Amino acid sequence: MPLTARKPATIPLNEFTATEIVRAVAAGEATCESIARACLEHITVREPQVQAWQHLDPEQVIVQARALDVSGKRGPLHGVPFGIKDIIDTCDMPTEYGSPIYSGHRPKNDAACVALGRGAGGLLMGKTVTTEFANQTPGKTRNPFDPARTPGGSSSGSAAAVADCMVPLAIGTQTTGSTIRPASFCGVFGYRPTWGDLRLTGVKEASGSLDTLGLIARSIEDIALYRDVLLRAAPEPLPAEAGVPRIGFCRTHLWPIVEPATQQLLEDAAKKLAQRGAKVIEVTLPPEFERLIVAHRWISSFEFARNFTWEIENHWEQISERLRNGRIKDGLSCPFERYREARDFAETCRARFTDICGDCDMLLTASATGEAPIGLNSTGNASPCAIWTTLHVPSVTIPAFKGPNGLPVGAQLVARRNDDRRLLAAARWVYQQLT
Amino acid sequence: MPLTARKPATIPLNEFTATEIVRAVAAGEATCESIARACLEHITVREPQVQAWQHLDPEQVIVQARALDVSGKRGPLHGVPFGIKDIIDTCDMPTEYGSPIYSGHRPKNDAACVALGRGAGGLLMGKTVTTEFANQTPGKTRNPFDPARTPGGSSSGSAAAVADCMVPLAIGTQTTGSTIRPASFCGVFGYRPTWGDLRLTGVKEASGSLDTLGLIARSIEDIALYRDVLLRAAPEPLPAEAGVPRIGFCRTHLWPIVEPATQQLLEDAAKKLAQRGAKVIEVTLPPEFERLIVAHRWISSFEFARNFTWEIENHWEQISERLRNGRIKDGLSCPFERYREARDFAETCRARFTDICGDCDMLLTASATGEAPIGLNSTGNASPCAIWTTLHVPSVTIPAFKGPNGLPVGAQLVARRNDDRRLLAAARWVYQQLT
Repeated sequence: MPLTARKPATIPLNEFTATEIVRAVAAGEATCESIARACLEHITVREPQVQAWQHLDPEQVIVQARALDVSGKRGPLHGVPFGIKDIIDTCDMPTEYGSPIYSGHRPKNDAACVALGRGAGGLLMGKTVTTEFANQTPGKTRNPFDPARTPGGSSSGSAAAVADCMVPLAIGTQTTGSTIRPASFCGVFGYRPTWGDLRLTGVKEASGSLDTLGLIARSIEDIALYRDVLLRAAPEPLPAEAGVPRIGFCRTHLWPIVEPATQQLLEDAAKKLAQRGAKVIEVTLPPEFERLIVAHRWISSFEFARNFTWEIENHWEQISERLRNGRIKDGLSCPFERYREARDFAETCRARFTDICGDCDMLLTASATGEAPIGLNSTGNASPCAIWTTLHVPSVTIPAFKGPNGLPVGAQLVARRNDDRRLLAAARWVYQQLT
Repeated sequence: MPLTARKPATIPLNEFTATEIVRAVAAGEATCESIARACLEHITVREPQVQAWQHLDPEQVIVQARALDVSGKRGPLHGVPFGIKDIIDTCDMPTEYGSPIYSGHRPKNDAACVALGRGAGGLLMGKTVTTEFANQTPGKTRNPFDPARTPGGSSSGSAAAVADCMVPLAIGTQTTGSTIRPASFCGVFGYRPTWGDLRLTGVKEASGSLDTLGLIARSIEDIALYRDVLLRAAPEPLPAEAGVPRIGFCRTHLWPIVEPATQQLLEDAAKKLAQRGAKVIEVTLPPEFERLIVAHRWISSFEFARNFTWEIENHWEQISERLRNGRIKDGLSCPFERYREARDFAETCRARFTDICGDCDMLLTASATGEAPIGLNSTGNASPCAIWTTLHVPSVTIPAFKGPNGLPVGAQLVARRNDDRRLLAAARWVYQQLT
C-alpha cells in the first residue's frame, strides 16, 4: 500500500513513520511520550524474540520524551524515536562496539550523528546490536520475519528494530554491505550516502576510506528527512520526478552468486519498470571493475588492522577468532604498496563511473544474494555491495520483493556520487511501481 | 652541521635524534631509562619558559622506560621518547583537546598512532599543548627561541617540544597549516603526509576530508622512520637521490603576504639549489587555484560545525568567542550545496595537480609568511599551507633559514600525492645544500 494512502488514526503509534510522527506531534494528535510508550510496549513484546537492542533503558526514554513534550518543537525530528548502532558513541548510554573489550564503556560525548538527531528533537531510544567492531562476527539479533535466520549485518539491530516497528528510524554504518544487506534481509529501506557527506565523528572507525553512515527507515520520505537532519540542513520534500527515470540494469560480474529466484525477481522488475514507462537499458561494468572486490579487501583490511592497533596489542585474547584470522590477518599481511595500489585503482574507477552510467539516472542491481539465509552464525554475503561501496556512490535498497520463502528481498538502486536526492526521489517512483 | 657529522658521544642524550637513540640503545650505549631521564631533566629546566606540555608525569615515564629496558627490543622505535598533541586519545593520560569541556577527560584507549608508536617500542612522554580543538585559540606554549613569540599552531607544543630537545619526535595534526607552520616557526622538520595514508582513529576530528597527522622531528631520517612505524611497515632507509632533483619554484598567489625577507630567502634558495646542480624552474598554479583558499574555508567550516554538534548543543558557553564567531559561525551558515561545490572543486584541482607539476619532482614554496610573530594571542597565518592541504599532497618544511631577527624560517617542499618517500629523500638533499 502506498504510504500516502495510510490513515494514521487506524494504525498503532509504533507503526508510524517518522514523517507521520512529526506531523502528528505538531498537530497535537500525539505526544512524544505516547509515541515513545507505544514503541517501548511493542519492544517489550517482541524483543525476547528479535534481540535488536544492546542497550535500552525505558525509564530514561520516558524522561527524555517528557522533556521533549515540555520543551516544544526543537527541530524537524521532534518526537521521533531513533536507534543507534552500538558502534556509535553516546554520552548517556554504554557503547560497546560489539566487543567484550568495551564492556560497560561510557564515552564522554555523543557522536555527531547522535547529537544532530537529538538537536533536531529526535528521541534516542537506545543502542542497537552490531557485529563485533562492525565486522563479521554476529551479535544476538534475529531476523524479525524468521528467528532462525540472520537479520544481516553488521547493522543487525538497526535493521531489525526498524523492520519490527520498534523505532521508525535507525542509524547503521557500511564499510562493505552493512546497511544495504540487513535492510534487504529485513524488508526495509536502507540508504548508504555518497562517501564523505555525513560526518563520522564519534563512530568507531573500521576503514575510514570506505566507511559511511547508513540510514534505515520504513519510508523513503523518512530517509530524506533524516539525511537533511544529519546534514544540519533545513528539510526539503523530495523533488517530484522529472519524467520517468532512465534505469541501467546492471548485473555485475557477481551475478552468478545471486540466487536464481532473486535473479528472476530483478529481471522481472526491470521489465515491469520498462512497462511503466521507464527507459531501461543494460549497463555492463568494464571487466577490470571485477578487481574492485579485491581492492576493497586490501583497503579495508589494511586500514582496519592499523585502526585497531590498541585492541590488537592489549586485548588480543578478547578478539574473536574470525576477526583475528580474517580482516586482521589480511591487514597485517598487506604491505603499504599493495594498499596504495588498491586505493589508486579504486580512485581510477570512481572517476570512470560517471561515464559508465551514460544517460542513466541510476542503476538497478542486487542488494544481496537472496533472502536472509538460515542460521545466526553468519550475517550473509556482502559482496553484491562491495563494488558500490568502493566506488563511493550513493545507494538505496527498497523492499520490493518477496523471495521463495516469503521473506523480504531488496532491490538496490545506485547513482552517481552527489546524486543522493535524485536517487531517493527516483527510488520512491521505482518502489511505487514494484509494490 | 649535517647530521651525519654528529658525534653522539659528545652531545647530551636529550639532543639525540630518534635514529641515534635507536642505534645507541641497541648497541647498549644507552638505556631507555637514561634517555628518558635526560629528556625529563631538560624538560624540568626549560618547561617553565616553553610550556610545551599539557600533561607529563615523570614517574609514569620512568616506569615505562624501565619496562622497555627489561622487555628488550620491541620494535624499530625502541626507547625513543615521543610527544603526542593533546587532540589525540591516550588510555593512560588525560586528553583535553585544548578545551575546558574536556577537562580531566580520560579516553578508554590509545589512538591508532599512539598504539603504533608504543607497539614499536616508543616511549610516550606526555601530551603536548594544542590550540582549542586544533583550531585558532592558542594554548600556553611559547616559542623556544623567544618566549614573546608564538610557536605557531595548532600543534604548538609538539613543535616546541621537539625544537627544544625535550623529545626527538612528536605527532601533531594538520587541517590548514597546523604542522608545517609551527615546525617552521620553531626551526624543526615538519611533515604532512599524503591525505589518507596515516590513520586518524582516536584523533579528535576537525575536518575529516582535510585532516592528517603531522610528524615533527629534528632530522629527515627520523621523519621517515616514524612514518614507517605509523604505517606499520618495516622501516627502510630513504633511497639515495637518483640524480639531482628537479624543483619547481612556486610562489603562488599568496606571495604578497609572504614577508619580503622571507621572499628573499626563498629566491636565494632557488638560485643556490640551481647552482648546486638542481634543475629549477618556475611553476605557476592556474589562476583558479586561488579559489582553493575559499574552498578550504567552506569544507573545513562545514565539517567542523557538524562534527562539534555535541559540544555546540551542550557546552556552548565553554567554547571560545573566537571559535564560535569564526569556524563555527562560518560552518553553521554554510549550506550543503556550497560545501559540496567546494569539495568538488578541490577534487578537480587535485586531479590537475599532477600535470601542473610537469617534470618537477617537487615544488619549493613558503612554509609560513616569515618568522614567528611577536605575541601569544595568535598562532600566525596558515594560508601558505591551505592550498597544499586542500590538494591532499605531501609536504615537508625544512629548517633552512634564519630570518631578520635570527629566528627560524622554514622552506616548504611539496610533492604529488603518494610521492612521500621521494619527497623526503629530496628534502634531505635540499636541506644539505641550504645549511
